[in-house]
Amino acid sequence: MSAPLKVRMGMVGGGEGAFIGAVHRMAAALAGHIELVCGAFSRDPERSLRSARTLGISPQRAYATFRQMLEVEAMLPDDQRMDFVAVVTPNHLHYEIARAALECNFHVFCEKPLTTTLHDALALKNTVQRTGRLFGVAFNYTGYPLVKHARHLVASGALGDVRKVVVEYVQGWLAFPIEKDGQKQALWRTDPTLAGPAGCLGDIGTHAANLAEYIACQPIAEVCADLSTFVPGRPVDDDVAVLLRFAHGARGILHASQVAIDEENGLTIRVYGTKGSLEWRQEDPNTLIVKWPDRPREIVRAGTSYASRLSPAAVAACRLPAGHPEGFIEAFANLYRAFADDIRRSRGEILESVLDYPTVEEGVRAMAFVDAVLRSATPGAKWVAVPQ
Amino acid sequence: MSAPLKVRMGMVGGGEGAFIGAVHRMAAALAGHIELVCGAFSRDPERSLRSARTLGISPQRAYATFRQMLEVEAMLPDDQRMDFVAVVTPNHLHYEIARAALECNFHVFCEKPLTTTLHDALALKNTVQRTGRLFGVAFNYTGYPLVKHARHLVASGALGDVRKVVVEYVQGWLAFPIEKDGQKQALWRTDPTLAGPAGCLGDIGTHAANLAEYIACQPIAEVCADLSTFVPGRPVDDDVAVLLRFAHGARGILHASQVAIDEENGLTIRVYGTKGSLEWRQEDPNTLIVKWPDRPREIVRAGTSYASRLSPAAVAACRLPAGHPEGFIEAFANLYRAFADDIRRSRGEILESVLDYPTVEEGVRAMAFVDAVLRSATPGAKWVAVPQ
Amino acid sequence: MSAPLKVRMGMVGGGEGAFIGAVHRMAAALAGHIELVCGAFSRDPERSLRSARTLGISPQRAYATFRQMLEVEAMLPDDQRMDFVAVVTPNHLHYEIARAALECNFHVFCEKPLTTTLHDALALKNTVQRTGRLFGVAFNYTGYPLVKHARHLVASGALGDVRKVVVEYVQGWLAFPIEKDGQKQALWRTDPTLAGPAGCLGDIGTHAANLAEYIACQPIAEVCADLSTFVPGRPVDDDVAVLLRFAHGARGILHASQVAIDEENGLTIRVYGTKGSLEWRQEDPNTLIVKWPDRPREIVRAGTSYASRLSPAAVAACRLPAGHPEGFIEAFANLYRAFADDIRRSRGEILESVLDYPTVEEGVRAMAFVDAVLRSATPGAKWVAVPQ
Amino acid sequence: MSAPLKVRMGMVGGGEGAFIGAVHRMAAALAGHIELVCGAFSRDPERSLRSARTLGISPQRAYATFRQMLEVEAMLPDDQRMDFVAVVTPNHLHYEIARAALECNFHVFCEKPLTTTLHDALALKNTVQRTGRLFGVAFNYTGYPLVKHARHLVASGALGDVRKVVVEYVQGWLAFPIEKDGQKQALWRTDPTLAGPAGCLGDIGTHAANLAEYIACQPIAEVCADLSTFVPGRPVDDDVAVLLRFAHGARGILHASQVAIDEENGLTIRVYGTKGSLEWRQEDPNTLIVKWPDRPREIVRAGTSYASRLSPAAVAACRLPAGHPEGFIEAFANLYRAFADDIRRSRGEILESVLDYPTVEEGVRAMAFVDAVLRSATPGAKWVAVPQ
Repeated sequence: MSAPLKVRMGMVGGGEGAFIGAVHRMAAALAGHIELVCGAFSRDPERSLRSARTLGISPQRAYATFRQMLEVEAMLPDDQRMDFVAVVTPNHLHYEIARAALECNFHVFCEKPLTTTLHDALALKNTVQRTGRLFGVAFNYTGYPLVKHARHLVASGALGDVRKVVVEYVQGWLAFPIEKDGQKQALWRTDPTLAGPAGCLGDIGTHAANLAEYIACQPIAEVCADLSTFVPGRPVDDDVAVLLRFAHGARGILHASQVAIDEENGLTIRVYGTKGSLEWRQEDPNTLIVKWPDRPREIVRAGTSYASRLSPAAVAACRLPAGHPEGFIEAFANLYRAFADDIRRSRGEILESVLDYPTVEEGVRAMAFVDAVLRSATPGAKWVAVPQ
Repeated sequence: MSAPLKVRMGMVGGGEGAFIGAVHRMAAALAGHIELVCGAFSRDPERSLRSARTLGISPQRAYATFRQMLEVEAMLPDDQRMDFVAVVTPNHLHYEIARAALECNFHVFCEKPLTTTLHDALALKNTVQRTGRLFGVAFNYTGYPLVKHARHLVASGALGDVRKVVVEYVQGWLAFPIEKDGQKQALWRTDPTLAGPAGCLGDIGTHAANLAEYIACQPIAEVCADLSTFVPGRPVDDDVAVLLRFAHGARGILHASQVAIDEENGLTIRVYGTKGSLEWRQEDPNTLIVKWPDRPREIVRAGTSYASRLSPAAVAACRLPAGHPEGFIEAFANLYRAFADDIRRSRGEILESVLDYPTVEEGVRAMAFVDAVLRSATPGAKWVAVPQ
Repeated sequence: MSAPLKVRMGMVGGGEGAFIGAVHRMAAALAGHIELVCGAFSRDPERSLRSARTLGISPQRAYATFRQMLEVEAMLPDDQRMDFVAVVTPNHLHYEIARAALECNFHVFCEKPLTTTLHDALALKNTVQRTGRLFGVAFNYTGYPLVKHARHLVASGALGDVRKVVVEYVQGWLAFPIEKDGQKQALWRTDPTLAGPAGCLGDIGTHAANLAEYIACQPIAEVCADLSTFVPGRPVDDDVAVLLRFAHGARGILHASQVAIDEENGLTIRVYGTKGSLEWRQEDPNTLIVKWPDRPREIVRAGTSYASRLSPAAVAACRLPAGHPEGFIEAFANLYRAFADDIRRSRGEILESVLDYPTVEEGVRAMAFVDAVLRSATPGAKWVAVPQ
Repeated sequence: MSAPLKVRMGMVGGGEGAFIGAVHRMAAALAGHIELVCGAFSRDPERSLRSARTLGISPQRAYATFRQMLEVEAMLPDDQRMDFVAVVTPNHLHYEIARAALECNFHVFCEKPLTTTLHDALALKNTVQRTGRLFGVAFNYTGYPLVKHARHLVASGALGDVRKVVVEYVQGWLAFPIEKDGQKQALWRTDPTLAGPAGCLGDIGTHAANLAEYIACQPIAEVCADLSTFVPGRPVDDDVAVLLRFAHGARGILHASQVAIDEENGLTIRVYGTKGSLEWRQEDPNTLIVKWPDRPREIVRAGTSYASRLSPAAVAACRLPAGHPEGFIEAFANLYRAFADDIRRSRGEILESVLDYPTVEEGVRAMAFVDAVLRSATPGAKWVAVPQ
C-alpha cells in the first residue's frame, strides 16, 4: 500500500486581492489530496509571481498567461504535470480558458456562471463531451450536507410530489454604487463586458436556480420575470424576481437582490410537497427544518454522529459530529473533494464516490435560465420557456 | 366624572363552531369599554338563541335574522341600542349586511375581504360616505405594535425610499381536500358562491397586500400574477404568486399559499429601502429586525417599558412590558379599541386616538388588488394595473 | 337552559398606576364568565373611587378599605355578592387580606409570593383548609399550553426519569437604582418591609422554582445558594444562583437576576431525562423543543388545530389555531378560567375542569424554597433542606 | 522576496479512528503555512505507518513511538526537522509527551486538559519557562472571531464592570453507557486512568471555564460545586454544576453535562455588566448578541466585510464576508495560525500577530479550576479557592 497520489491543481486568476480564488484554495486545502502546483494568477506577470511566492509555489510554475501555463504544464512528466485547471477569473474569461484547458487535455473546475452567453455554454458542453475531460462548476451551495439531505428527501418521495418551491438569494453589498469608488469585486460584477449581460441574475440568481433544481429534482421549465436596477447608472440588473414553473408540475418563486441592505448571503429555499415540506437557510447551514401534516416539525441537524438520520451523501459530506458547525469553506471543499475523487476514479485509484459535484450540465442549465429570464423581462413577454 | 359609557356591539354570524366570531368577541372583551349586547349569530334561530345564552346575552336580543336585529335595535332607547354591528359571516354576506346596517345608521366593523367583488366594495364605500357612519375592516395584522413601528420607520424616512417589498402569507391547513370531509372552515372558503371567486387570494392574499401597503406607505400599482389550484377538484385557487410594482417606485413579491404543509400562519414581510431594511414575522410578533448598512442589526422589541425606542402608535398598542408576549388577540383587540375610541370620539367623549384602524378605504383597496390579480392570471395578460 | 352565572370578582389593590392589577383584570376579562364587581383599589379612598369609575364599577362598590369591602359584600344578596377576592397588593399585605377574606367565607386568588414568611404561608394554608374556601396563587407561567404539555411529557414517562433541570429567570429592569428615582414598581420590590426579606428571589425566583417543580413533577428537596446584591445600597438581593437537588433524584440549577441588562422576562427551563429532553422559553411560549437520542428534534407548537399532538390540558389551554400567537395575558387568563371553573364546579354548575391552577399548596412550597435559599446563602451553610 | 518557510508539524496520537487528531490536521491545513511532516500516530507501529501513508507522509517519518520521533527529528537538518509537536493523545499522556518534546527543544501544541493533575500542570509550566519553548493549548473556542470580539467588549469597558457570567457546555452523547459497547471516544474519557479524575468536568467543563475567563477578563477565584454521575457504574462525573466567584467581583454559574440528551455541543456564554450584556452560542458562532439598557439589542455578525464593526483580533480571525458561515474548523485553525505565526515571529520571519492563542498559562488555570471543583464537591466543603 503506497501513499495516495495527490491531485494537482493549477489556477487561473485568484491573485492578490481576489476573493473567490482564495476560497478555492482554502477549499482545496481542506478537501485533502489536492495540491496547488502552479498558476497564472494575474494578467500582470509581476503580480502573478508575487502571488505564487506567497502561496509557496515555485517561481518557475508561476505563469505569465494561462496559455503559457497550459503549454508548459502539458509538457511536464506525468507525475508533476497539473491534473486540472481551476478557473477563477471574472466571467467573461471562463469560456476561453476552460475551452483551451480542455483542448490541452486538462480537467477543469470552473467558477460560475459558466459563460456569459448560453451559446458559449453549449459550445463548452460540446467540448467537454468531445474531449472526455471532467468538468466541475462551482455551484458550491450543493456541497452542504443538508442540501444533499434535502435533495434526498425529495428524490426518495418522502415529501410527495413537489408543489411549490420558494428560493431566494439576498445580499446588500451593492446597495450603494461602490463600483464608482473602485471596489474591485463590485467593479467587474457591474460591468457587462466583464460579467455578461446579467448582473445580480448571473452572479447569484444562478445559484438560486441551481439550488432549486438540485433539491426539487426537476428542471425549471418556464419563467416570468421582472428585472430591476435600483442603483442609478448601473448598467446591469441588481435585483430580480421570477415566477417559476417546473417541468414536473411544481411552481415557484425565485428572487435575488444585491441591494437589500444588510442582508449578508441570504440564500434560502423552501420546498412544499404533497406529503411534507422542508426549509433550509445557507446562513444556518447545519439545520434543516422538515414539516409534516400530522406530527411536530423536525429539526434535522448535520453531523457525522447523527448518521442514522441522514442520507449517505449527507453523511459523507460531514467531517464533524453534530454541534460542531461546518460552514461555507467545508461545503466548497466537498465539491473539490468530489471532483478530485472523480479524477482519481478516472485514473482507477478509487471506486466511485458517494459525493457528487455540479458539472458542465448544471453550468449550461444556469445559462439557459439566465437567457430565459432576460427574454421574459422584456416588454410584452410573460412566460418564456427555458431551453432544456 | 362619571364612568365611561360602554360601546355596545351587535354581532351577525359567529354562532357555535365559528372561528372568527369568537376571536372578535375575545378581542372586544380585551379591548375594554365594549359590550356585546345582541346578535343574529346564526341563520338557525334555535342556534342563535343557544349562542346568545352561552354568551350571557338576554334571549330577547338574540335575533333570528340580521334584518330583525337592525329593525328592533334601531327602535331601542339611546342608552340601550347597539352602537355598531360586527359582521363575521362568510364573505358573500358582508355586502348586504354591512350596507343594511349603515342604512339603519349603525357603525359597522366588518370581516375581510370586504365583499366578493370590487363593484360591491365601491358601492359600500359610497354608502359609508353617504351615511357618514364609521366603518372598520378586520385587517387585524396592522394591530400589532411592531407593524405600527415598521410603518413609522418607513413613513419617517428612516429607511429611505422603499426599493423592494417581500411579503408572504403561507398556511398548510388546506393541503388536503378537507372540505370534502365537511370541515366547516374549509367548506365555505373553497366554495366560490360563499367566498367569492378568489380562494387563498381573497382569504389571506388580501391580508398580505394590506400589510404591504400599510408598512410600505404606498399603494400597489401593478401586478403580474400566477394563480394555482394544487388540490384536485378545488374550484378556487389555493396558492398565489404575484410580482408587484408600487406607486412610488418600489417593486416587490407577494405570495400566499394554503397548501404549504405545516406552515401555520406565516405572514412575514421585509422592506428594503435606500437607507435600511426591516423584517417582521407574525408568528414572532414582538420582534422587529432593523438592518443598517453601517452598524449592527437591531432587534427592536415590543413592550411598554421600552417606550423611548418605539413610535407613539406602537407604544399605544402595547399593554405589557417587553418580554411579556402579546399575541394575535391583543393585536385584534387594538383594532377594536381604535374603532371603539373612534365611536366615542364621534360622540364627543374623547379626543382623537393615537391608534388607527383599517377602514372601508383599505377594504376597497384589497378588492381592487384581488380584481387585478385575477385578471393578470388569465392567459395573455402580464402587468395589470390595480384600480386606484 | 339558562345563561351561565358570572363569577363575581372583587379586587384589593391594583389602582391607578399599578401593573399587575391591570393584568389580572385583562386576564379575567379574557377568561370569560368573570365580572369585576367591586374593589378596594387603593388605600387612598379618592383614588380607589377614581379607579372604580374608570373601570365602570358603580361608586358604592368602590371601597375605602379591604375590611369594609369584605364586610359590606358579605351582607349583599347571593346574586350580587362577590364570589372571590383578587389580592394584587404588594407582598406584605397578602397574608392579612387573604386570611380576612377566607374568614369572611370568600374564595381568594392571590398574587405571589403568597406571604413574606414561611410561617405566615403555613398559617394561611391552615386557614384555607379550615374554611374550605378555594385559593388560587398567581404562578401564572403554568397557564401556558406548552408548559402543561411539558409537564405531561414528564408525568407520562415519555422523557424517562428526570436527571437534570436547568431553570432561569433573568430580567434587567433593576440594573440601575431606579427605586431612588421613585419608580413605583421598583420602590416596593426593593423595600424589605413591603416585599419581605427576599428581593429578586421572592419576586421571580419563586416563579422559577414553581415552574421547575410543576414540569419536573417532583419537589425541590435541597438547595445550595449564592445571593447577590449588585446595585450598591439596595437592601435586598437582586440576583440569585442555586444548585438544586430534587426529591426523586434529579439535580438542577436555578438562577434569577434583575440586573441582567436588557433581559426582558427571560424565564426558560430545560429538563433532561433518561429518555429525552425538553426546552421552553417564556418569551417564545408557543414553541416547545423536544429532543430524542435517536431521531430529530421536534418543534412542538401550541394551537387548537394541533390537538392530536398535545395533551388534553394543553389543548384546553389554547384558544386559537397554531401560528396565531397567544401570550402572557392568555396564559394568565387560563389560571382565572380554571379558578372560576372551580368555583362554578363547587357550586355544582359544571363538572371538573381539565385546566388546573396553582393553589395555596404551591404558594407554601415557594415560601419554603425562599426560606431554604436564604438560610443556605448564609456563611457556613451549604446544602439546606427545603421543608416539605 | 522568497516564499515563506512552512512551519513543520509532527503529531503524537491521532491515528485511524481518532476524532481530535483529524481535527488538528484539518485545522493546520486550513491555517496555511503549516505542513505535517511526521508522526507517531499510534502505539501500534503498523497502524502508525498506515496512518502516515493515508496522510501522504513518507514512511521513514512514521515513528513507532513519540520518543523515537523526538530523537530522530532532533537530528534532522534545520530545514527538514519538525518545528513543533502536536499532542493529541488521551489526557494521561499529555504531560509525559509534552515535557519530553520541550526538553528536546521542540515547541508544543497540546490538547486539553493540559494534564491530569494540577501538580503536573505546574511542573509543565516550569518546563516551558525553563526551556523557553512556545506552548499552545487547544482551548479552541477562543479561536472564534466573535469570542475575540466579546472579550474586546469587556476589555474595552464597553459593558462596564462584569457582574455576572453564565456559561454552560451541554452534550448528550454519553447519556447512555456507550463505553460498555466499546465506543472508542467514550472508552477513554470515562476511564480515570486515561482521562484523569475529572470526567465531564475535565473534558468540557475546562472549556467552559477557559471561555469564561477569556471573555470576562478575570480569573475564577472561588467555586462551589456539585458533581454528578448519572449513568450507573461510570467511575467519573458526567455532569457538573458550579457557582462561581471571580477575582474582580463578578459572580457566575458554570454547568456542563454529557448526559443532556440530544444536546450537541452546546457551549454558550452570557456576560452581564454594569453597562451592557452579551450572549454567544458556539452552535451559532457567527452571531453575537449585545444588549444595552437604552437602545435595541444588536446582532453583531462575523465577517471580513464587516470590519468597521469588529475589533482587530476579531477581523483577523475571519476569512470570509459576513453571511458565509465559518465554523469549528476555522476557529481551530485560528489557534494554529496564531501558534505558527508565533513560531515564525520567534524566528524573526514576521512581526507579532494580532491573533492570540491559549498558552500553558491557560492550561494550568484550567487544571486549577478542576482541582478546586473536585475539592468543593466533597462533603462539608462549600466555597473553595481556585489556586491562582
